[in-house]
Amino acid sequence: MVKLDFGKANGLIPAIAQDHKTGEVLMLAYMNEASFNETLKSGKATYYSRSRDSLWKKGETSGHVQHVKEIRVDCDLDTVLLKVDQVGDAACHKGYRSCFYSKVVEGELTIAESKIFDPKEVYK
Amino acid sequence: MVKLDFGKANGLIPAIAQDHKTGEVLMLAYMNEASFNETLKSGKATYYSRSRDSLWKKGETSGHVQHVKEIRVDCDLDTVLLKVDQVGDAACHKGYRSCFYSKVVEGELTIAESKIFDPKEVYK
Repeated sequence: MVKLDFGKANGLIPAIAQDHKTGEVLMLAYMNEASFNETLKSGKATYYSRSRDSLWKKGETSGHVQHVKEIRVDCDLDTVLLKVDQVGDAACHKGYRSCFYSKVVEGELTIAESKIFDPKEVYK
Repeated sequence: MVKLDFGKANGLIPAIAQDHKTGEVLMLAYMNEASFNETLKSGKATYYSRSRDSLWKKGETSGHVQHVKEIRVDCDLDTVLLKVDQVGDAACHKGYRSCFYSKVVEGELTIAESKIFDPKEVYK
């Protein structure tokens, strides 16, 4: 079994979700050991919500599940990279494909992508 | 000025470095406010080393500097995505292009990439 290093930051490690076809970085969330094991078992990205303090099955409310195609682990065994197939094309709860829709231009943030869905329609 | 949320995890936020041409995820490290500001100012990726507890100018020892082509910030303002030009083609101190050279296959880690340099030759 893969043993990751959950000891550095209160049992949590960052997990990056990347589109397995385009290479686009969709989001970063956190995993504890239980969520990593659940991701391995289910084949669907499962994180740990720091704000809700509980396991977070991505897409449970929105339907925007991430099917895991490949799992990479970094050299220090303390970061996970998931290559995923993003259902609904949008990973961000604000309606964008990627959570990284803001770009720094001359020291200020500008929105660099278009919304794919209206959050009010998806999270009722 | 861009104001990020450094308040959630002891003043540090994760920063992902991605090859600006290929989309390959090269590494994940951490930034405090000073390292983010230094990255903006210098145009070179500057992190915060948790193990050395100090500012970390990536490539200072190895020469494997990361020239920042674009900076993205996520929807919660607590993660940075750097699109970089990786000098020397290798980001990982173990000699691989990406720190994510290990792949999970049937519950075990296997090395999925080849080394680009010999760490003993670079870090003397």
